[in-house]
This record gives sequence, C-alpha cells and structure tokens, in this order.
Amino acid sequence: MTLVRRLSTAAADFDAEFARLRHWSAETDSAIEGRVAEILADVQRRGDAAVLEYTARFDRMRVDGMAALEIGQTELQAALAAILPAQREALEAAARRVRAYHERQLQACGLSWSYRDEDGNLLGQKVTPLDRVGLYVPGGTAAYPSSVLMNAIPAQVAGVKEIIMVVPTPDGVRNPLVLAAAAVAGVHRVFAIGGAQAVAALAYGTATVPRVDKITGPGNAYVASAKKHVFGQVGIDMIAGPSEILVIADGTTPPDWVAMDLFSQAEHDQLAQSILLCPDAAYLDAVQASMERLLPSLPREAIVRASLEGRGALIHTRSMEEACEISNSIAPEHLEISAAEPQRWEPLLRHAGAIFMGAFTSESLGDYCAGPNHVLPTAGTARFSSPLGVYDFQKRSSLIAVSAAGAQVLGGIASTLAHGEGLQAHARAAELRLSDRA
Amino acid sequence: MTLVRRLSTAAADFDAEFARLRHWSAETDSAIEGRVAEILADVQRRGDAAVLEYTARFDRMRVDGMAALEIGQTELQAALAAILPAQREALEAAARRVRAYHERQLQACGLSWSYRDEDGNLLGQKVTPLDRVGLYVPGGTAAYPSSVLMNAIPAQVAGVKEIIMVVPTPDGVRNPLVLAAAAVAGVHRVFAIGGAQAVAALAYGTATVPRVDKITGPGNAYVASAKKHVFGQVGIDMIAGPSEILVIADGTTPPDWVAMDLFSQAEHDQLAQSILLCPDAAYLDAVQASMERLLPSLPREAIVRASLEGRGALIHTRSMEEACEISNSIAPEHLEISAAEPQRWEPLLRHAGAIFMGAFTSESLGDYCAGPNHVLPTAGTARFSSPLGVYDFQKRSSLIAVSAAGAQVLGGIASTLAHGEGLQAHARAAELRLSDRA
Repeated sequence: MTLVRRLSTAAADFDAEFARLRHWSAETDSAIEGRVAEILADVQRRGDAAVLEYTARFDRMRVDGMAALEIGQTELQAALAAILPAQREALEAAARRVRAYHERQLQACGLSWSYRDEDGNLLGQKVTPLDRVGLYVPGGTAAYPSSVLMNAIPAQVAGVKEIIMVVPTPDGVRNPLVLAAAAVAGVHRVFAIGGAQAVAALAYGTATVPRVDKITGPGNAYVASAKKHVFGQVGIDMIAGPSEILVIADGTTPPDWVAMDLFSQAEHDQLAQSILLCPDAAYLDAVQASMERLLPSLPREAIVRASLEGRGALIHTRSMEEACEISNSIAPEHLEISAAEPQRWEPLLRHAGAIFMGAFTSESLGDYCAGPNHVLPTAGTARFSSPLGVYDFQKRSSLIAVSAAGAQVLGGIASTLAHGEGLQAHARAAELRLSDRA
Repeated sequence: MTLVRRLSTAAADFDAEFARLRHWSAETDSAIEGRVAEILADVQRRGDAAVLEYTARFDRMRVDGMAALEIGQTELQAALAAILPAQREALEAAARRVRAYHERQLQACGLSWSYRDEDGNLLGQKVTPLDRVGLYVPGGTAAYPSSVLMNAIPAQVAGVKEIIMVVPTPDGVRNPLVLAAAAVAGVHRVFAIGGAQAVAALAYGTATVPRVDKITGPGNAYVASAKKHVFGQVGIDMIAGPSEILVIADGTTPPDWVAMDLFSQAEHDQLAQSILLCPDAAYLDAVQASMERLLPSLPREAIVRASLEGRGALIHTRSMEEACEISNSIAPEHLEISAAEPQRWEPLLRHAGAIFMGAFTSESLGDYCAGPNHVLPTAGTARFSSPLGVYDFQKRSSLIAVSAAGAQVLGGIASTLAHGEGLQAHARAAELRLSDRA
C-alpha cells in the first residue's frame, strides 16, 4: 500500500474521489449527548458534590473537597521555575510575540467608536471585555502548553479580569509545562477538573468554581457536546473538528520542507488531514519520495501513516488557479502557499483559518510563535468563522443618543413603520417626542 | 390586581423577588428537539421533496414544485410599488440610515490589516465577506419588515454576494411590507418556506435552495432548535429569547414618555420584560399613574397587561449607581438611560445590547431607523455577545509571511516548544528552515 494517495483533477472520477476524501461528519454520537446532558443537569443541581464524584470516577482522583482540586499561583510559579531554562525562554518568547500580535488586533478592530450625524445624533459602539472566561485545556497526551498561551493571551489583551482554567489531571498527574504556560499567560485560577463536569461547573457555577461568561478551548467528544449544550447560557468558541493542512505548491520549495509540513499535521491524530495541491507532477513525485524517506525517522510514524493513508492526498492540478479554487471549496484550517510569489495567489483565496505565505512560513512556526492564534476554524467552518482572537473576549453595545432635532426626523419614520407592523406603542413612543404634536 | 409590581432594593426580600422576576429558561423542550431532528434529517436525505411535504402540512400550501415557492424579483418590486408612498419612503429612509451606520461599522472594525515586525515577517488578518447567507423571517403576526432591513443590510454592506431569504406564508398569504423590505434591502432570492424545514434547506442545500454559510434571523421554538442543531455545519446568530427593556431614570423625563417606552417592549409578547429603575419613589408613582392612564388606549392592551403583570417591575433603588449595578447584573437587551446626564452613567454600564441615552432616545427610534441594528442579545447574553453587525457576515483569515531571517529566530522557539509537546514533525519542519543546520 502506498503511503499517500495520488489524485488528479483531470481524472474522470476526481469529484467523487475528492468528496470521499473530504467526508467527515460533525454529528455527535447521540449516546454521548445523552450522557453529557445527565452530567450537566447533575452538576447544575448538586454543584461541587457532583463535580467531585465525576472527577473521582473519570479521573480516578479522590479528594476531600474542591479546595484540593484548585492549583494555586504558588504551584504555577513553582512549575515555571522548575522547567528547563530553554523551555521557559521559549514559552516567554512565544508569549511576547502572541501578545504583540493580539495587541495589534485590539487596535485594528477592538476599540469603541462613535460619530454624530447631520442632526446631532450620536451613534456608535462601545466595546468592552467579558468579565470572566473559562479556558478548557485537555489533559493527558494532548495537553499542549502552546494552547494555554493561545487561549489566555487574547483574553488578557481584551481586558478580561478573571481567566479560569480547567485541566483534567487523570490519576493526579499534572503537566508542568501546562502549569508553567498558565503562569506565563497570566491565568488567574486553575482547577484540576475536566470533561463535561468541568464545562458544567464553568457554565453554571458551583460554590467553588465561579460561573463564567464564555468557555473556549478544545476537548474530546464529551467536552464538545457539553459546550454545544451550554451554548446560549454562556458563549463558546467553535466546536473543533480534526486538524487539517492544505499546501498549494508551485514546485519551488525544497520537497523535504513540504513533506515535513504535511507530516506535522498528520502527527496530531489519525483523523487529521494533509493535502498537497500542485500543477507540477514531477514535484509531487519528489515530495512523495521525501515523505517515504523521512517518515521512518519520526517517533509518531504510526499516527502519521494512519492519517496519510486514511485522509491524505497529493493532488495534481491543471494550474495554480485551479488549486486555489479547490482550496476555497475546502476552506482549510491551515493553508500554506509554498510558492515563489505567494502574494500573487493570496487574493484568490477566500476561505482559510490562516494563510502561511512563502517557503519559510511553515505551519509549525505559526502554531507556536509567529504571533497569530493557532486556534482556527476546522472542517470547512472557515467559510463562516475566524481564528480565536481578542474579539472573542469582547462584546459590543450599540450607543444611541438622539437629539431633540433628531427625534423630529426619526419620529416620523419610526411611527410610520411601527403602525405598519401593528405595534402602536412603538409608534406612540416615537410620536410623544415630536414637538409639534397637538 | 395592580398593573405592575413595585419593588425596592431596600426591602429584605428584594434579592429573592428579583431572582424570581428574572427567571427565564433557555432550555428547549426535548419533544420539540426530537421532532426538529427528524425534520432536519429528512430534508437532508430527501431535499426538495421533504420541504414540499412539510410546507403542505404545516403551512397548508400545496404546490407542484419548488419553483412555485420562489418569490421572484418582479414580485418583490411589485410589492414595493404597491405599498403606500409614506410606507415606501419610511422603509427607504430607514434603510439609508441603517446602511450609513453599518458602513461606519465596516470602516471601524471590518477591514483587513497587516504589519511587518522587526525581522521583516508580515503578520495580519485578511477580512472577507461570507459567500452566501440565509435570512429567516417569521411569518404571520410577527412578520416585521424592519427585521428584513436589519438582517439583510449588514450582510450587503459586508459584501455578501448572495442573500437568500426564507419566510413562511401560511395558507399562501404573503405580507407585502415584508416583500417590499426585501426589495429595498437588496435580498437576492426569496423562498416562501419556514420552520425547521427552511433551516434545513438553507443549512444542507437542496436541488432548489442553495446551501448557505450562515443563517440569521429570529423564529419560533422550532426554528431556534433547528438553528442550534445545524450550528457548526453553518454559522448562526444568537438564539433569541423574549425581548426586554430596562430603563434607568433620574426622574427628569416626562413620565408618559417612559411609560410608553415600557409598553413598547411589553406589546411584543407576554413573555417580554419591561423594568424601570429609579432612585425617586415619587417619579415611580408618576410613571405608574401614566401607565394606568395610557394603557387602555392601546390596541395591544391585553398583551401589554399580561407582560407587565407577569414580568414587569418598577424598582426603587438607593441611587443611580445602584441602578447601574443592577442593570449590569441583568445585561439587558435594550437599556435606556433616561436622564439629564446620560454620559455620566454610561461608563458604569458594562453589559447591554444597546444603550439609548437621554430622554429623546426612545427605544422605538432605535428599533426602526436610528441606524444601529435592532437584532440584539437577549436573556443576559449581552454578557458575552453583541448586536448583529457587519462582522457577523465577515470572517477573518490570519496572514503570516515569515522572512528567511525571521525563520531563524522563530525556528528555535518553535523547535523547543514542539519537542516539549512531543510533536517532532512540528519541530523538524521548523528546524529544516534554519540555515545553520548541519
């Protein structure tokens, strides 16, 4: 069996093959949904007692009370002091860059604004931070300190006063890099809880865990189902699907570089998807040869192999333009334009979580430290959603101050429309402000 | 029985009374959820045929095919030509003002941006419109032409190329004002379908109804449940709860004006909530007297009375500051500061969908034509969400172009962090770009 399938857009069966390749269902298992609904209702009803029971059952952590599940600032700082100096420097350098980028984002699109129209009415929007947010951090093998930075720093830049982190610690094992990242990112409180019970504690509040206004961060199917369930009572970020990379190559990037970029997505998870599009068949051959040569050197070879066999593809396109069109139909989470003139193709690309331009811009640099957020829309949701950002930790309030003169102009319009809708109190509220009423 | 309850923050039982007053559950009926899931699955499987069957059953509309359910541009223009000239002028004036405001919003927070850092790396965000959106417009008594403007115009300003509207027309009755508003707002296609079947058609696409990227607009419990269900496959706006107004008064506004503003919310629906907060008990007496005098003159008296009896309140506060704190705990959809110095209190108000400042700024002026959107977060969700806006019809893609020099700096950081997370392909993708590698 070959490592990765080869497709060609010129083949008669391309559309069908491509649709099969792309298939992934966001539907949640209804058994999981039922179980999650029970856990949520139980935590809503019994609070801390329920959280303690589920934590004992699922994470094998028996403690006397919730206080034993809070990880204090002293322990976070101790974790930061204990990790290797090179790791601490890397975490701090990444945090600085992520913070700098998100501060630019705040300036570019996160500030209040207002203006006065010709009648002296003031109109605008006031932008304010959320009061308190919850950050879900997975435990076990998928515990990523970089995700702590990527979720907490935008909240901090937005001005959120209280960032609560939850992270399951099965059997009591705590990940020192995750705790160090929480210290670097300025997380305010950390609880060693996870699963649907942690989402419930954040959404409804318990005697110990304060209720938050929004929950962000990735998790397993139970966490995703719980977030979807509490959506509306609190805000949530997107429900994440498997991670994906799409590379559009013009054949000028060293094949080993592109091969390793495809691997770096595939190593996440066997459902992860790595796709390369290129109009140059010889280049596809070269990348495939690189992949076959480099793969055995990877510790996560088995996951990479399963991911590539199941969902990977090297696709020969008729042109770079066609590659851009296919990319738009996918709306990939990560999109590399590994080309000599990336700025030539970028305007053709309408949908993507993040666009990595040029041979030096490996996705991994963006994942860790370029500055932009690595929490990105997956599974085609880049058609309608955006990277996690400062704007996810802010909300807007419209501002309206109508002048006496303005009320005369607006009152007539509002009155006519309100009568048309059969809402007479609306009409009369407008009419009462007219100075020429009898 | 009095028309509206009076509360005082100084009373011993205030907190309990206030909690009872505020109680409203966003939980969906599970019988409705099950029925909706069936309809969605059926439309996903059978497409147009299923939509036709449900439309025949629920809207008593039997037609030969989907073509008969599309309302063409000719009919929209005919509706616009047929309504009263005053209504047409009011619709067009409102649309102009709403468009002007949302164009400011686009300039303030909806444009692409980028910068270069000290190593010559380009970082930024590209902001692009959604390709195609669906606008749900309720039929029957709650069919509001103003909502057509408020949903379609931000999409149009964002640059959405195709705006698809669905509106149920039970028994084939079409609302000419709604169709005229669609013409004014520049809606591209209109289908006379509604309910969960319309949401399914938009979310999954059928042979006739194109699949959209996001669905916005209010609807009944079936529509709300359907939107929540398809969330993730498409984007949705917020799930709307009952409408609410909170007025903070300092006693300087004519009591009749405030009374009518409270009515204008209560007339929507008997679950709507109208609350007045004021530190001046005599002023509360005056407003109550106005309410009792003015109510019998309203055509929707019965709805107003039910809403006020069930969920309304006039609350005596110790101070304006306390009124602002209570308002923050409610996070109201509509917040009027009916005071001589609204700008003095505005900075104390952290959570609200829209803030109406000063005696002339009745909520009804904002509902129709001041310019800001009237689709606002309800049921306390202003804690974490925002008015509908241009930003709801755009999405962002991060832009990253790392320079050769930048790759040397970033590569070391990324490599260290990736090794720490056990993701060696990530590390090696970064290391391959280092020019000093052996």
